[in-house]
Amino acid sequence: MSTIIDSFLTVIKPEQCLTGDSLLSRYHHIWQMDKPLQAKAMLLPESTSEVAELMKICHAENQPVTVFGGLTNLVGSTETNEQEVVISMERMNSMEQPDLQSRTITVEAGVILEHVQEAATKNQLLFPLNYGAKGSAQIGGAISTNAGGLQVLRYGMTRNLVLGLEVVLADGTILSSLKKVIKDNSAYDLKQLFIGSEGTLGVVTKAVLKLVELPKSRVSAFVGINEYDKVVSFMRYMDQGMAGTLSSYELIWNESYKTLTKDPSIDWTPLPYDYDYYILLEGLGSDQEHDQSRLENLLEGALHEELILDAVMAYSQSELNKFWHIRENVDALVAHCDYDQHFDISLPVNVIGKTISSITEKLAKIEGVTHIFPFGHVGDGNIHYIIGKTTEEDTLRRQINDVVYEPIKSIKGSVSAEHGIGLHKKEYLNLCRTEEEIELMKQIKRTLDPKNILNRGKVLDVTG
Amino acid sequence: MSTIIDSFLTVIKPEQCLTGDSLLSRYHHIWQMDKPLQAKAMLLPESTSEVAELMKICHAENQPVTVFGGLTNLVGSTETNEQEVVISMERMNSMEQPDLQSRTITVEAGVILEHVQEAATKNQLLFPLNYGAKGSAQIGGAISTNAGGLQVLRYGMTRNLVLGLEVVLADGTILSSLKKVIKDNSAYDLKQLFIGSEGTLGVVTKAVLKLVELPKSRVSAFVGINEYDKVVSFMRYMDQGMAGTLSSYELIWNESYKTLTKDPSIDWTPLPYDYDYYILLEGLGSDQEHDQSRLENLLEGALHEELILDAVMAYSQSELNKFWHIRENVDALVAHCDYDQHFDISLPVNVIGKTISSITEKLAKIEGVTHIFPFGHVGDGNIHYIIGKTTEEDTLRRQINDVVYEPIKSIKGSVSAEHGIGLHKKEYLNLCRTEEEIELMKQIKRTLDPKNILNRGKVLDVTG
Repeated sequence: MSTIIDSFLTVIKPEQCLTGDSLLSRYHHIWQMDKPLQAKAMLLPESTSEVAELMKICHAENQPVTVFGGLTNLVGSTETNEQEVVISMERMNSMEQPDLQSRTITVEAGVILEHVQEAATKNQLLFPLNYGAKGSAQIGGAISTNAGGLQVLRYGMTRNLVLGLEVVLADGTILSSLKKVIKDNSAYDLKQLFIGSEGTLGVVTKAVLKLVELPKSRVSAFVGINEYDKVVSFMRYMDQGMAGTLSSYELIWNESYKTLTKDPSIDWTPLPYDYDYYILLEGLGSDQEHDQSRLENLLEGALHEELILDAVMAYSQSELNKFWHIRENVDALVAHCDYDQHFDISLPVNVIGKTISSITEKLAKIEGVTHIFPFGHVGDGNIHYIIGKTTEEDTLRRQINDVVYEPIKSIKGSVSAEHGIGLHKKEYLNLCRTEEEIELMKQIKRTLDPKNILNRGKVLDVTG
Repeated sequence: MSTIIDSFLTVIKPEQCLTGDSLLSRYHHIWQMDKPLQAKAMLLPESTSEVAELMKICHAENQPVTVFGGLTNLVGSTETNEQEVVISMERMNSMEQPDLQSRTITVEAGVILEHVQEAATKNQLLFPLNYGAKGSAQIGGAISTNAGGLQVLRYGMTRNLVLGLEVVLADGTILSSLKKVIKDNSAYDLKQLFIGSEGTLGVVTKAVLKLVELPKSRVSAFVGINEYDKVVSFMRYMDQGMAGTLSSYELIWNESYKTLTKDPSIDWTPLPYDYDYYILLEGLGSDQEHDQSRLENLLEGALHEELILDAVMAYSQSELNKFWHIRENVDALVAHCDYDQHFDISLPVNVIGKTISSITEKLAKIEGVTHIFPFGHVGDGNIHYIIGKTTEEDTLRRQINDVVYEPIKSIKGSVSAEHGIGLHKKEYLNLCRTEEEIELMKQIKRTLDPKNILNRGKVLDVTG
């Protein structure tokens, strides 16, 4: 009897179709999930038309498919079982030279984020999507999850950086719109459907990405504040004063700051431990000397007006890198926890102070919770929590979830600002989406993937 | 026998339901369309729940509905016939006070764009959506058409400025997500479906809009250039040098510049008529004196490097307003034409020079074409054409369309950058969208509006 693997082999070469041992030897672990890969086969297409032919076979056979990018997802979006077929985009990793006039770059889905950044920088341009996993994360995954990161405040999320998109639908139809134009109001903007839908509506195969001018200056400061309202007033003051150059406005709570700076890898603590809130801000401009002196003046003004209590500027790029090392040294927080649980919530900026205080207070009362580390992109209303605990037990995990997610509905926040829903947050989706919204999402899923073969069981539960 | 009007009157008061003479007397003309309004009735709901109840009735009765905002649409999106019911949003015109910490404003769909701008400005904030029709255009219409305008280069189109949205679906379901958060990756971003779909998928009733800091400085210059490639190099040079403050980069071709500045309403011609291309650029920053001197230095540098041939800066806000009056004085172009035909095409920035030259050359050879005025938002790749002609005859109109749209497919441009498709561009949609894309759009339309009652016959032809 002929199997689905035989059908795949009419489209791709044997070395593009891993099964059995060849599969296990190459893909034993998934990032942050210490278990072997479960799959019927892993397919390694080399072109959009191969992806399309493979999807046609899967569609005909009701074969569930999960697409792999760089596997840096944090919400179980790429977990699979032995009934599923995995399509890995790793061989679709070519990119065109940046188009210097249109300020765009056209790349295949399997290209690593950092490689796009490098290609842009070499040409005096910037691809401003930037986050910790950039060395492994692939563009296809960044698009499928609408990735955020450290410069959203100025440049927006992935959605804002995609001009053109090529996608293969569940039935193998190729939807190609690789345009370099910034404005296009010709009927429905279909690409928006695929950006952020976590591989449940189509397979992203190629994209035209927007590039911006490479900044020529970079300035930064660490600031101490004791009242949350001043965190917001100071943000507005800096955003106004820095006139379009403010690119990051990160907030670290006292406890997190202490732990981050006491890590052995840190040789410099910019500010004493006296403050409730620590802000790390950055500006990307065109004139180092001027931007440095403007920042100095703004900070002096803020100190004078008692908007802030303390401030340290980075006077060299190496000091600036030390600032960022503190903020990005999330491993130092995790290291303190026997077990750790992570959050990525979104809140209206005005309620962050009191909401996080109240959540933290309630978490501290839970038996088994040992550490509470809030920090985040406060300029975007996106707070991350790392919670340390004594056990991985499900009851405790749920107890912690319940406390963190409890206020989300009433404050009109989100259980996921940037990581997505995947598997892990599916049961909390109704805290930030109405019944009517979820019903419409399911209708869209059924329209685009009537057999429910794309990333089945992720994001939404649809029968099919 | 009870009519649909009777059903409407169970939901709204008689003065909210105009029929017969009361309808004609109030709405005799639609903007830019000199014909009386055709409709079975015009309904004036005062709340989202009234809109929902009215839609339920229309859905049950297969009653086609067209939603009216400020009627400033340019592509026939609000044309109606006597079988249709019009829902006008004019009574849903309340707005909340701006939220100064979240930098948002929550408004009903019928609020006039200019009123949102004013509410923001009063609070030291800016709602950066800005275009000529701001005094009549309503927010609901701006959202439905994903309006663009004069500051897209820096702040994006309407899509980038909508954080939360409330929509009534074809069957009366209320889809409400009036969130103030900037990041929300909780499953599908449904609002993207309604932004730019020209009222064919739902009725926008309310929105949370993003506000930005009010700039404290405004600088501007008019520049002359003879080679298109330098138009692009100079844009990149200025964008880099002005570090995030460049908000407009408008291009006017020689013929258009001459006609615009020779208009009796213009008392000042900033540059002589020697150049092929005229650039009007603007920067919005935080320090008038510094920004002015930075602009001066940048222009001197550009002259020295022979990037540009000539430049004049605005040395006062009144000079700056005169610059913009030239650019916005489109009526002066129209006044030269016995009959006029308008375009709003999108092109990759790198091919604009040669594509517009070639189109202009071909247009000049058409008998009956008297004037050819190209200008546009070159920084966004969006060019407008005003074509003067001797007759309104359909053959000539089509001949002109064919020449302007001919290159769109091969250069991967768009027949509509910002105005939408409506009725007038429907037959050209396939020049910038593939068969597969149009088929998927129709599937989405059928899913959201199975009876095809919302703005029937606009954008797409769907049977239903």
